[in-house]
Parts: sequence; C-alpha cells; structure tokens
Amino acid sequence: MAATKWTIPARKGLAVKVAKGCTFSVVNTHGSQVVDTWAFNAADMAEFMSLEHSRAGFRRLVSRIGDTYLTNKRRPIVTVTDDTSPGRHDTLVAACDVYRYQQLGHQGHHDNCTDNLRDALAALGLKATETPAPLNLFMNIPWEPNGDLFWNEPMSMAGDAVTFRADMDIVAVFSACPMDLLPINGKDCIIRDAHVVVG
Amino acid sequence: MAATKWTIPARKGLAVKVAKGCTFSVVNTHGSQVVDTWAFNAADMAEFMSLEHSRAGFRRLVSRIGDTYLTNKRRPIVTVTDDTSPGRHDTLVAACDVYRYQQLGHQGHHDNCTDNLRDALAALGLKATETPAPLNLFMNIPWEPNGDLFWNEPMSMAGDAVTFRADMDIVAVFSACPMDLLPINGKDCIIRDAHVVVG
Repeated sequence: MAATKWTIPARKGLAVKVAKGCTFSVVNTHGSQVVDTWAFNAADMAEFMSLEHSRAGFRRLVSRIGDTYLTNKRRPIVTVTDDTSPGRHDTLVAACDVYRYQQLGHQGHHDNCTDNLRDALAALGLKATETPAPLNLFMNIPWEPNGDLFWNEPMSMAGDAVTFRADMDIVAVFSACPMDLLPINGKDCIIRDAHVVVG
Repeated sequence: MAATKWTIPARKGLAVKVAKGCTFSVVNTHGSQVVDTWAFNAADMAEFMSLEHSRAGFRRLVSRIGDTYLTNKRRPIVTVTDDTSPGRHDTLVAACDVYRYQQLGHQGHHDNCTDNLRDALAALGLKATETPAPLNLFMNIPWEPNGDLFWNEPMSMAGDAVTFRADMDIVAVFSACPMDLLPINGKDCIIRDAHVVVG
C-alpha cells in the first residue's frame, strides 16, 4: 500500500487511524516543532497509551528505538522502530491547555493541545474519556541529577522523524503545539506545521 | 481541633476528607512502606492532583518542601509543608494493578493500588472518573543522566513523615502498596501498615 502523508497544521491537531502492524512516522518538517502525540485503542477509547505505565515498562524517562509504549491496561500499543532525531522527547509534561496560557498571562483564547486533541478526535466522530498525558515528540525537557527540569529549544533538525509500529488498531492523535510564550518550539517562538506519514 | 490518626492497613487503601487549610501527615511507620497518594477536589471528583501538570508547575521530577501540586485544571491542591524523610519520592510510575501482577507471573488475585483507590473511595460513597497517576511517597525510583530508571528500596526510616497542606477541600486517598514481587517496599518484600495524621 502506498504511504499517505498527512499535515499537522501549525497550532492544530490531527487524528489518524493506523491498523495493527502498520507504521507511521512523525516528521519534524521544519525541525523546531514539538508534536504532542497520543494513541488510543481504536476498539475502546478508554484504553490508551499511558506514559506512567510505559515508563514502568521500558524503565526509562524517555523511550529509545525498540521501546514499546503500553496502555493503561499495560498492553503494547506502539513501538518505536526508528528515530532520526537526537532522541530527546518528553514524557513528563502535560498537554498545554487554556489554564496554562492564562497563567502565562495570555488574554483571550489561545490554541492549545488539550483542545486540539478533543477537536481532532471529534473530526473522526470520536471522544476521549480523559486527556491522557501526551508523548511530547521533539520536546526538550532535560533533567538534572537533583531532579530539576528545564524548558529548552528542540534539538531536532528539519526532516527528523520518529517512526512507530502500531501494536494494535489505533487512533493516533497529533498536535503541533501552539506554545509561543516559551521557547520550546524554537527561539523565535514561531509555530510551524509538521507531517505524519502512514504506511 | 485535636489531630486524628488513621491507619492505612497493610496492602489496603484509605480515603479521608481534609478541609482547605488543614494539614495531613503521611507517616512511614515502619520505614519501608511505599504509600501511593491521590488527592481529589471534594466538590468535583473530575478535578484531581495531576503529576504531569504538577511537574510543569514546580519544574522538578520530585517535589521539595514548599512545592505545590496542581490539579488537571492547574489549580493548587496540596502543598508540601514538611518532609522528615530523605525526600526521595516518585512521580513517574503508575499505580500497580491486576495487569502488573499478571505480568510479573502472579497467579490469581493480588491486592493492588488501583483497586485500593476504587475501594477506599467507595467506602465514602465516591467514585473517581479515572485512575490518576499517583504520588508514590517513599518510593525510590532513581534516574540516571541517560534517563534509565531503577526500582530500589525506600531510603526512609521508621517514623519519617511527609506533611501537606490542603489548598482546597479535598478527598485524599492512600494505599499501602502491596507490591511484594519487587523490593520497592524493602528487601524483605513484607508489606506493612502506615498512618495518616490529619490536623
């Protein structure tokens, strides 16, 4: 089957169904864009990729090639099969939301990954039972030996990609994180699109 | 008001209401016991202490004295006001559940923190809308510079306690973690009771 390329629009979300055994690559087209990523069991939206269960499975703060993410029922849902980026991703930080932007001093509406998850699923007629913690691809949150965390620019380059194999039929959801008040999407704080290649 | 002392029975859970402004101490009575801890907004069980939001708030893997945990709406829910232990707690690992014990090779029923949360809330006529990631008090999961995690024995001593102030009216839930297949509750893998002192 030919590969299908999807755009994650800047500041917005995208939901895509991926069949068990198929692969999908999340491409950091411009190099500086964080992509919040979720995966749900296509047959049961209450089962989804859970980072607190996954960390206990692969015993790391951040996955490496070959590591498998687990659901909240501890079943394999996606496996990292390739990663051409430096491998710095984040499993620690919640999706941004209206409260985050309010606290950072923003007035009025601001796009956010939590709403993007909801809207992307709604476009497929689906609804999450909760907002799981996202896998923040390309997000550079280094940790110190004393546990301190920092919000840094991505280390990725244009075209870097992370490839996953779906270990069950899934609905994958992506959000081109609209955070433009901190430099997590690059020093210029400009939000850009990214791409997903399925198959 | 006189302080009230509650027992968290070995292998089981306990739910306690704590009014805004009041403090509660989680006492590691025997020194080696991990206590999974949750906090819910007493007025809205869908709002609860969220570790992925909290880490973004205090910008650490593990809280220190003075740090405030946030809800999934990024509102303060509890603040650490004292900690007589070495301060090694865990925010990374999911509550144990039936799947965890199955995967570790256990046959038949095994007590677990996920069910303990449900049962402790049910004893107060309450129900969680999901199973939030727990704050695992006294659980010693060190991290390496490369992100590797380890499941070690607690560093705490008998009588060590962590004290919190409730920043809203809450339902606090505790589970004396029944994990006896890994040494997280001490080398002898014996599960013991712990205590909570409110007020």
